[in-house]
Amino acid sequence: MKKVCLVIGAGAGIGGTVGKRFARDGYHAVLCRRSDETGLNRLVAEIEEAGGSASGKLLNAIEDDAIENLIADTEANVGPIEVVLFNLGAQIGNRPLSDTSYKMFETGWRLATLALFRVAKSVVPLMEARGSGTLLVTSATAAVRGNGGQHSHAAAMGGRRMLCQTLNAEYASRGIHIAHVLIDGAVDAPDTLGKMLGPENFAKLREAKGQDHDGLLLPEHMAETYFHLAHQHRSAWTFEADLRAHSDLAWWNHAPKLV
Amino acid sequence: MKKVCLVIGAGAGIGGTVGKRFARDGYHAVLCRRSDETGLNRLVAEIEEAGGSASGKLLNAIEDDAIENLIADTEANVGPIEVVLFNLGAQIGNRPLSDTSYKMFETGWRLATLALFRVAKSVVPLMEARGSGTLLVTSATAAVRGNGGQHSHAAAMGGRRMLCQTLNAEYASRGIHIAHVLIDGAVDAPDTLGKMLGPENFAKLREAKGQDHDGLLLPEHMAETYFHLAHQHRSAWTFEADLRAHSDLAWWNHAPKLV
Amino acid sequence: MKKVCLVIGAGAGIGGTVGKRFARDGYHAVLCRRSDETGLNRLVAEIEEAGGSASGKLLNAIEDDAIENLIADTEANVGPIEVVLFNLGAQIGNRPLSDTSYKMFETGWRLATLALFRVAKSVVPLMEARGSGTLLVTSATAAVRGNGGQHSHAAAMGGRRMLCQTLNAEYASRGIHIAHVLIDGAVDAPDTLGKMLGPENFAKLREAKGQDHDGLLLPEHMAETYFHLAHQHRSAWTFEADLRAHSDLAWWNHAPKLV
Amino acid sequence: MKKVCLVIGAGAGIGGTVGKRFARDGYHAVLCRRSDETGLNRLVAEIEEAGGSASGKLLNAIEDDAIENLIADTEANVGPIEVVLFNLGAQIGNRPLSDTSYKMFETGWRLATLALFRVAKSVVPLMEARGSGTLLVTSATAAVRGNGGQHSHAAAMGGRRMLCQTLNAEYASRGIHIAHVLIDGAVDAPDTLGKMLGPENFAKLREAKGQDHDGLLLPEHMAETYFHLAHQHRSAWTFEADLRAHSDLAWWNHAPKLV
Repeated sequence: MKKVCLVIGAGAGIGGTVGKRFARDGYHAVLCRRSDETGLNRLVAEIEEAGGSASGKLLNAIEDDAIENLIADTEANVGPIEVVLFNLGAQIGNRPLSDTSYKMFETGWRLATLALFRVAKSVVPLMEARGSGTLLVTSATAAVRGNGGQHSHAAAMGGRRMLCQTLNAEYASRGIHIAHVLIDGAVDAPDTLGKMLGPENFAKLREAKGQDHDGLLLPEHMAETYFHLAHQHRSAWTFEADLRAHSDLAWWNHAPKLV
Repeated sequence: MKKVCLVIGAGAGIGGTVGKRFARDGYHAVLCRRSDETGLNRLVAEIEEAGGSASGKLLNAIEDDAIENLIADTEANVGPIEVVLFNLGAQIGNRPLSDTSYKMFETGWRLATLALFRVAKSVVPLMEARGSGTLLVTSATAAVRGNGGQHSHAAAMGGRRMLCQTLNAEYASRGIHIAHVLIDGAVDAPDTLGKMLGPENFAKLREAKGQDHDGLLLPEHMAETYFHLAHQHRSAWTFEADLRAHSDLAWWNHAPKLV
Repeated sequence: MKKVCLVIGAGAGIGGTVGKRFARDGYHAVLCRRSDETGLNRLVAEIEEAGGSASGKLLNAIEDDAIENLIADTEANVGPIEVVLFNLGAQIGNRPLSDTSYKMFETGWRLATLALFRVAKSVVPLMEARGSGTLLVTSATAAVRGNGGQHSHAAAMGGRRMLCQTLNAEYASRGIHIAHVLIDGAVDAPDTLGKMLGPENFAKLREAKGQDHDGLLLPEHMAETYFHLAHQHRSAWTFEADLRAHSDLAWWNHAPKLV
Repeated sequence: MKKVCLVIGAGAGIGGTVGKRFARDGYHAVLCRRSDETGLNRLVAEIEEAGGSASGKLLNAIEDDAIENLIADTEANVGPIEVVLFNLGAQIGNRPLSDTSYKMFETGWRLATLALFRVAKSVVPLMEARGSGTLLVTSATAAVRGNGGQHSHAAAMGGRRMLCQTLNAEYASRGIHIAHVLIDGAVDAPDTLGKMLGPENFAKLREAKGQDHDGLLLPEHMAETYFHLAHQHRSAWTFEADLRAHSDLAWWNHAPKLV
């Protein structure tokens, strides 16, 4: 039985690409996303064509028992989950308080915070029993600072980061590696950023970001860091690493105020 | 009509004491808490005996419309809300992942994060129309680092802090002061810490904390800082201040690791 | 004998104004600055005309023994130093690596970091023997993030902040209050910002910052927070508080990156 | 001509081991340390026996021109420096304010902060001209929080971290990758920790840290992360990553205060 890398939130950006990276190294990738079965099948096919092993599953993470059943089924029918990549979010763009409804705020939390708690409740005890496991969590700048217009996103990601710290404090010494990957910039991801901006603006942004678009975070290269983190020896684990394109300012920098 | 200081979460600790401090300076204090009508009436009576003005209200903040109606009623029948102290939390003590239910996790968020969003949605537009207002938010160490056993609390408080940053980014320049008060230690509060520890342990803790218990955070003195923050001139506002007893180590310190 | 508030770095901005604020409440203010004896005498005269007590001293803080002698003389001849405001810096504006000499880098450290260590070595043991004392340290955004062009300033202020944390960890429980005041914006200070920008640009900046310039940090109002911090009860001390004008974005906010 | 990895601070712990890791992958490692020529020669010999290329140099980094000449000589006589590992520090153990002399405080800064500035001044313009280069900086918990007894170390490391942020802000977009590696725990390093603790205590600590000592940070495994960081694609660079043993609490965690 192959060891499993479970990707929750597997679009054509970070999620799918990280899945491919693990599959290349002998993992069976279980790729889950909410919609676009065609896109999902394409990802699985690409992995198999490259000689890897993968399966896909449509998952509405917000539904009761969806995550719980996914994890139970995977363990029962595919193999022991060695690595989970938690890659869900509910970024709704820049939206002032007046345009942020209770429902949006709650959905942000259900997808970005509660869903991670549900994953942890379901999979961490299994990993603990085996003495090892890795939980990779994609995070965003909004986890460390709240900008205007980010009520739902910042609250959800800020909660998520603190939850990761708690999980790490409780489980690292029992052999479970929690890594919080702080993505600090725009990702070259057609399924998320592309949809948020619309095709035309997305194309313009890509063009503005250098010949190879490498002023955007390129999932293929980001995946190397996810893979590295999951394979650090337990004597030298990283809890948090940031990622950004070389040409982007870090979130803590901006036009100087002379102070 | 008196200017109003609305306290959401007004026990005998921080909430009630801050309410008294504002009442002493001419505010009408509207004190809200979930239960213990006797205790609430006592607080109101103490304010009135001291020559101040106050009213009390039982409030189940988790209920639909409870916060929204409270704010609308207060504005209609008491006066313009100049200051809100948001003082709710759902600290459930140290509790491992296995003992933290979905319901607990959700309740933590509903009380500590969503309720603040609801307050902001309800009161900030009114303050904005008047060009000024203050939102004081009591926070905890768990907002900046997640310890083991703090899954619900840390996630909720971490989300709350990021929400405060977003509110501040969006509203400070429109005259609304958001202040996030990071309480980094045990408060001499019979209604919260006292209940969590039980009367005997609480008594022991108080004794251990110096002759005047001033190794605990004393609400009467904390209230001075809340009051100061609410009266800073808008040319020099504080977004975040920490508070701890002199004899307590700051959250970032501990027995040295030689690194 | 009056209790003493010693201000190291007493220009017409924060330093002098905080000195006045303490003098108004019965402290003898000892005001020290490097140059401009006329300006220094004016500050002292203004305090005395207002019924307060003050003295002035030219101080080249970078010289051997200058700080040490100042503190010894003040204790011997003026009175016990209850409060020190450490207000020195060596902001040299925005300056790329290629234009930052070893000498500039060292001067930044000597004024902003080492001088504080020398103050602490000299005054903290005296305060410790008395069981109380306050060390207020003016800090800057550069203490928490390094922008481009801030090699000297950021390194010096970052070191200063960590030194303050160490002092706090070691001395708070012995009754000495260290407060690190993070000034996150431009201060309406003719002697520092005014000189750095030149009179014309400074006048323009002031005009751009609202009718009362209150989009700049106004020292008269900042001084209230310094005074408040120095008078917090030891059961509820603040180690760090930020200050900025309402109309300014916090250092952690900027034009959103959609992340 | 081989590309060069220059290690400043190459003992038997992190420095030497990272040097070996780069040599294994085709770099010529230039290993520099202050003393112990025998140990240095042994490191070089080990690299050469493994088929790699290396040279060693005794370096007193605190001396005028020592760093500057080292970099100039290396570029002239060995090859273009692609990667620098800056690995100097001046940890002097836990030492209260009263036992920390001006000289110690200054030495800490000269080794841990100024020396990095000198490295940057010397090597960054050369890297900039070539359009690429990597500066790996070993850092410590003291860079993000000052514990008691860490006056010199915390001030020096806090300044170093801010300097790294400034260098990153100024040079990342010109192709130079700055990575700040926050070592949050004790390293299995005989030349530094071993000497600080003494052989007996060091042996005890190792024994207490698990069968393979993997409750200590093991340099051989840490080196993998240093190597990974230096080879990230410029579309996905990490500025900061922490490293600690799985069994160690992160610096922000400690025995819960219930807050």
